[in-house]
Formats: sequence, structure tokens, C-alpha cells
Amino acid sequence: MQFELTTTILDSLKEAIEQKNQLFLKEQLSDLYAPDIAIIINQLNISDAAYLYELLDDDIAPDVLLELDDDTRENLLATFSSKEIAEQLDNMDSDDAADVIAELPENIQDEVLSHIEDIEQASDIAELINYDEGTAGSLMAKELVSVYAFETVTACIEEIRKQTDNVEVMYAVYVVDNDQRLIGMLSLKKLIISHPLARVEEIYEPDIQFVRTNTTTYEVAEFMQKYDLVVLPVVDQLGRLMGRITIDDVVDVITETADENIQRMSGISDDVDSNDKLWVLSKARIPWLLVGMCGGIVGSRIIGSYEEQIKIHPEMAFFIPLIGAMGGNVGVQSSAIIVQGLANNTVISDKIAPKLIKELGVGLINGLICASIIWCYAFLIEDWKLAATVSIALLTVILCASFLGTFVPLTLNRFKINPALATGPFVTTLNDIIGITIYFLIGRLLYAFF
Amino acid sequence: MQFELTTTILDSLKEAIEQKNQLFLKEQLSDLYAPDIAIIINQLNISDAAYLYELLDDDIAPDVLLELDDDTRENLLATFSSKEIAEQLDNMDSDDAADVIAELPENIQDEVLSHIEDIEQASDIAELINYDEGTAGSLMAKELVSVYAFETVTACIEEIRKQTDNVEVMYAVYVVDNDQRLIGMLSLKKLIISHPLARVEEIYEPDIQFVRTNTTTYEVAEFMQKYDLVVLPVVDQLGRLMGRITIDDVVDVITETADENIQRMSGISDDVDSNDKLWVLSKARIPWLLVGMCGGIVGSRIIGSYEEQIKIHPEMAFFIPLIGAMGGNVGVQSSAIIVQGLANNTVISDKIAPKLIKELGVGLINGLICASIIWCYAFLIEDWKLAATVSIALLTVILCASFLGTFVPLTLNRFKINPALATGPFVTTLNDIIGITIYFLIGRLLYAFF
Repeated sequence: MQFELTTTILDSLKEAIEQKNQLFLKEQLSDLYAPDIAIIINQLNISDAAYLYELLDDDIAPDVLLELDDDTRENLLATFSSKEIAEQLDNMDSDDAADVIAELPENIQDEVLSHIEDIEQASDIAELINYDEGTAGSLMAKELVSVYAFETVTACIEEIRKQTDNVEVMYAVYVVDNDQRLIGMLSLKKLIISHPLARVEEIYEPDIQFVRTNTTTYEVAEFMQKYDLVVLPVVDQLGRLMGRITIDDVVDVITETADENIQRMSGISDDVDSNDKLWVLSKARIPWLLVGMCGGIVGSRIIGSYEEQIKIHPEMAFFIPLIGAMGGNVGVQSSAIIVQGLANNTVISDKIAPKLIKELGVGLINGLICASIIWCYAFLIEDWKLAATVSIALLTVILCASFLGTFVPLTLNRFKINPALATGPFVTTLNDIIGITIYFLIGRLLYAFF
Repeated sequence: MQFELTTTILDSLKEAIEQKNQLFLKEQLSDLYAPDIAIIINQLNISDAAYLYELLDDDIAPDVLLELDDDTRENLLATFSSKEIAEQLDNMDSDDAADVIAELPENIQDEVLSHIEDIEQASDIAELINYDEGTAGSLMAKELVSVYAFETVTACIEEIRKQTDNVEVMYAVYVVDNDQRLIGMLSLKKLIISHPLARVEEIYEPDIQFVRTNTTTYEVAEFMQKYDLVVLPVVDQLGRLMGRITIDDVVDVITETADENIQRMSGISDDVDSNDKLWVLSKARIPWLLVGMCGGIVGSRIIGSYEEQIKIHPEMAFFIPLIGAMGGNVGVQSSAIIVQGLANNTVISDKIAPKLIKELGVGLINGLICASIIWCYAFLIEDWKLAATVSIALLTVILCASFLGTFVPLTLNRFKINPALATGPFVTTLNDIIGITIYFLIGRLLYAFF
């Protein structure tokens, strides 16, 4: 049911492009939806991509443009004239058109805007590109149905009829006062069952949720998810209705946030994807690798201070990786649970103590299980002293890691820093160092006294 | 703008509940939306929760019930009679009602159904609870507007009027043939601009995307996201229209999937949250800890086989944590990029070679940077032999980890196993072992020959 691009399909398309076999290409593309065609074009070099894009029907071409990777779109648009770009933007929703135009070089933006035939569309786009990226203003669309409180139901329906251009889904009707300030909404049901001459002010719902143009997209996403909203009006500082955000736009924000969190957790510092250039990928990854290196060097100094002991008891060295790895694993587990709880609002952020106690409880259970197993193993393979050292150290390390894994993300969150950072290499590196310190400290004590 | 529950608010509510201060409680709750009230109730003990729930207005109570944590809802419903539960379900959307009833003990389900007054709602719920969890059938709602192809526009609008019960958003109108098979859809615009006596068959859009009742919710989410759909019809094996899924239901699937992936990456094997019981949390985490333990034990055996060398060159032991940690970090970075590419369709899954080469390229750049730094450090602190060992081993380990981090998730994906598993403790443990092996191998060679 869903199209999947294989190397075979891609090769046959590339061959057809080389032979300029338009008939074959058009036939292949006719069955596909815009996102599928975009996936194909993303894989082509720029001249092939431009050739294929030229073949697309006018009604699907703008959608394909929107679905392309940022890089591919940028390269493709660079081959277009300002007038050609304007033609593509004319048929897009205002928010999508604004996204595309915002990516263009600034000197071209005005030229493209001047070529857009629909003057209202042009002014909507011009307004939208002024909002900062990452704000509700940049996410909203201007297409909405709004009515004045003094209007009648009949006038309302006429307004809807005018504004219902090509929409499959009809969202709420917003009610504004004479100064364009949002004062409520009107459900479709109310509109249909009310008397045609009833006034909007008699039937509208004044209790309405909204955000401001400068609310962050992250907050918008959280808000719409929490309150199960499919559409959310956006107002400016004066409370005037400026646009509306629909849940499908927010879905992109949600997946991007999730992707970003996974990248932070994995020690990748910028937002990259596998199609980015080699050096972009390298640059995004090197910072946390260097942090890991520093951690490793600190670790080497700690172990170095026990050099004499290692000469006498080289078996101490055997369990260094185990202690380090377990501290890291437990820390990541604890912090993942807390980070998720914070994101889903199941953790009250000012109630740290109960969470810490619970995590320490889990750490104690799992720590005792792991410590018992390693005791048996080390006792059988080596001697009781090493067994005691490793198992006591392991339990202590697991408890420490549980504590840090809970405490660090909760603290970061208090200071409004993304707690996902804590679930990554940071907590792993920290636990590595603490683990080794505890291990050798316990080892020295045990070997010294017994 | 958004409500945040603090300990102060919670304590004042608890006190008011104890004093049965209904006036204060009702006033506090009247300003809040259902999800906020649910967050409060989740934090109360069951008798307090039941007391507070009783105080809610009838029009908000079912919404609050839906937003509660699974455990809290289960406990709360256990204090209700079947008739009371039925009253709550009567005003819910069919899909939400089915979700609630599916959680009840089986012997109570039929009793509750028999108490639902709206017979159509009862039969819709009865149908929906039969679909397996995790399928489109379990996700869909029965509330939709469908018309026959032979009907007129006027009849259509009448049908919409009848079915538009309390909806704020009007989704597409579906067109079915005489056997209830889905054959297309009708946009609202078409409906409004067409002649009242025009027949649906003359104006409908036959090109429509749909899923089957047994499609997995994961596929539904991917499908709706990819094709930017806000609503998607669901058909049975015979192509009959059974229900519709809206994007807001899918948002929950998307966040759950993202949460699940983060848990897999963090070495948590079941879907848990921080409010789960101690032993549930422990059980979900112990499996990967044991895997990590086994990895640690294997590591100890490998290091153990170099015992004599460590006695002579204890400085070899210093860099064990560094080598292990760096292998783990690089592996996690590589696999996170690939897992994300697979999820977002920017990686063609049958094209492994180019990805591997690129990842090795990134590994080479970052590996050379890290290896040079550690060379300088180890040369200054120790000697050139150790410096050579550590830096050569580090470069090799980073390249290996890049390779495994790319290869393992791509391979798992081919065999339809969730590649996120590979980004977690699995790849860390594997890289730990491989790293130590390479390190000591290179060390032995260098010390033996020079």
C-alpha cells in the first residue's frame, strides 16, 4: 500500500531520465503521491532532479517541493527564476509558502514576493516570514474563518463558503470583536442548528484556548498534545487573531523534538541527518567525543594513582570495564525514565525526594541481583577479596548511578536546560569516573586491611 | 497560560478534600481543563480521587476519566457501579469509550454495555473492543459522515447536519457504494459549490487513501505522517468503510513510539513510566543490565589473558576505560543517525554500502582527531610505546564502532527487528568487548616487537 523506493526502481528512473523517456517517467510518477516523488527526487543529482520536477503536473508540483529535503529544495530552487518560484508558492498554504521563501537568499525573497499573483497570499507570506523561527508565528497559517460577533449565522455561512478553498477539513470558526481581537469560537453544530438570523454574539463559545505569536513551537506542541486540540488560534500581543496552527503542523514539531532528544541522548550536538555532508556529521559528533576523551583521561589518572596496587594485584584491572559499563547503563536507564516523566508531565518537577528514593530502591534491587551474581563469579574464578571488592563496588556504583541519573535531569530541568542532555554521554562519562574511583578505593581498603 | 501542578496547590487541595470543602474545590476546578484535573487526580489516593471526581461537572468528567493514568483510572472505575461507568461512556467518542471499556474485567464489560442508553453507541463500542490492540481497528472511531453515491448534495448536507453532534472540526465526507464499500470522498468545498440536486457520484473524488482494520497503528502513524493526512478512513477485508482515524489519535501513537524507542535505546525492555511500581521498574531494567554484566565478564576474561603483561606494564590498564567508553560513544552516535534515517525514510534500506562508507569517513575524521590528542597526552605522561598503543587502538576502535553502529541497525531493520534496540546497551556492550580486545592485541604486538 505504501510506496517503498528500491535501488531497482531508482535505477530504472535514472535510466529513463538519461534517455529523456518522458512517457515512461510520467506514467511511473502518475501513481505516486507527493511525498513518494520527493523521496525519489532527493536521491537524484540536481540536473536529473530539475528535469523530473519539470515533468510534474501543476497540482502536485508544489506539494513535492514542500516534501523535499532542505538541501535538495535549496539546490532545485536555485535553478528556478523568481517568477517560477512565485508560481509554485501561489498555490501553497501561506505557512508552507513562508517556510519555502524563508530559505531563499534575502535579495531574492522580495523579488519572488513581487511575482506572486494573489496579492492577499503575498501579503500573508510577507507577514509570516517576519516571525522568528521556533515561534508560534512561524508555525501558523493565515487561512482561517473568522467572523464578527455582530454578524448573523447566514453571513457566517457565506464567509465560510468564501474561505473554504480546497479544504478537506473544516476547522472551527473564530469570533472576533471590532478590533479583530479573538473573543471566542463557534462550533459547526451551533452554526447548523441555529436560526439563520441569529447573531454570532448570542451563540458563540467565549471559553477558548489560544497561544501568542511568540510562544515557542515546543510549548505549542506540548499545549496541543496535552489539551487534545486539533486546531489552535494564535493572537498577537494585543489579543488580535493572527492565524491558526493545526495539529498536523505540530506533528512535525513533535517528531523533530523526539529526534532531537534522541540525538542529545546519543551525544550528537547539532540537528543532522544521514544525508548531511561528511564534515557536518563529524562536527556534530566531535564535541561529546572530546568530553568522553577527557573523562577517559581523568579515569586514566585515577587508575594511574593505583599503579603499585595493579602490579601486585593485576586482577583488579580485569573488572574495570564491567564497573564502568554498569555505572553507565544504570545512569542512562534512570535518566531516561525521569526525562520521559518530565516530558509527559507524570513527574512533578518540584517533588525531587520521592523520585530519588524510588530510583534508589530500584537501584538497590537490581544492584543486589547484579552484585550477587558477580560475587559468585569472581569468587569461583579468583578469590574472596576480589569478589568482595567487585561486588561491593558494583552495588555502590549502581546506587550512585541511580542517584545521579535521577538528580541530574531533574536539576537541569529546574534550570530550564533540556534534561535529555543528561541522559547522554554526560551521565555516562560521569558515572565512568565515579565508578572507577569507588572500585579502586574499596579495593585498596579491602586489600590493606585483610 | 498552562497549568502547572505544584506541591503547594496539591497540598491545599488535599486539605480541602479532607475538610470536605466542596465550595473551595469546585471553585479551584472550575478554571481547569480536563487534562489538568487528571494530573491532580493522578496524585491523590483512591478515596480522595473518587471524592474529587464526584464533584466534577457532567460535561467534563468523561474527559477527565480519559486523561487519567491507566492505573488511576482502573482504581477509580473499580469504585463505580456498572451503571455509573455506562453513564460516563455514553458521552464519549466511540473510540475513547472502547478504550476505557477494554480495560475493565471481562465479566463487567457486558454489564456496562447493557447499561449504555444510546443503542448505536453501545453497538459501536461492542464492535470496536473486538479489534486487537495495536491495529487500526482499535484506533479508529465510528463517528463519521458517509453518503451513498446515488444521493444528492441536499441529502448529503442533511446527513452532515444529523451527524455533526458536538464536533468542532468537520472532517471529509466519505462516499460508499450500495454494499458500504468505500469508493471515494467529497471535499466540503465541492459540497458547498455544487448544485443542490447534483448527485454525489458526479462530483466525488475517487482517488482516496485508506488503511485496513488490521493495519498496525505504527504503520498508520507512519502513513498519516508521510502523506500529511489529518483523517484516514479504515476499511475491512471486503473494502467496507468501518471507521476513521484522526491525526490527534495518531499523535499519541507517535509519542508512544518515540518513548518506546528512547526506552529501547536506554536498555529498558518494557514500556514503563516513573509512576510504576518498584518491582515493575526493576524487572524492566534488569535484562539489559545482565547483558551488560555478561559483556563485563567477557571483558574481564580478555583482560585476564593479558595478566602477565599488566604486571610488567600496569600503565596498559590506565586507558581501559577510555577505549571502552569511546567505542560505546561512537557506536551510539552512528546507530542513532541510522535509526533516525530509517524512521524518517531518508535512508534507503537496501543501499547499505554508501552509508557504511560515509560512516567510516566520519569515523576516520573524528578518530584521527581523538587519536592525535591522546597520542600527545600519553606521550607526555608515559612513553611512545603506550602512546602508540592507545592512539592506534583508539582509531581502530572508533572505525570498528562506526562500522557496527551502521551495520547492526541496518541489518536488524532488514529482518524487521526494531533497529532502536541496536542503539542501546547492545551496541555499547559489543563495542566495549571489541575495544578491549583490539587494545590489548595492539599493545602486545607493540611491546613484543619494539
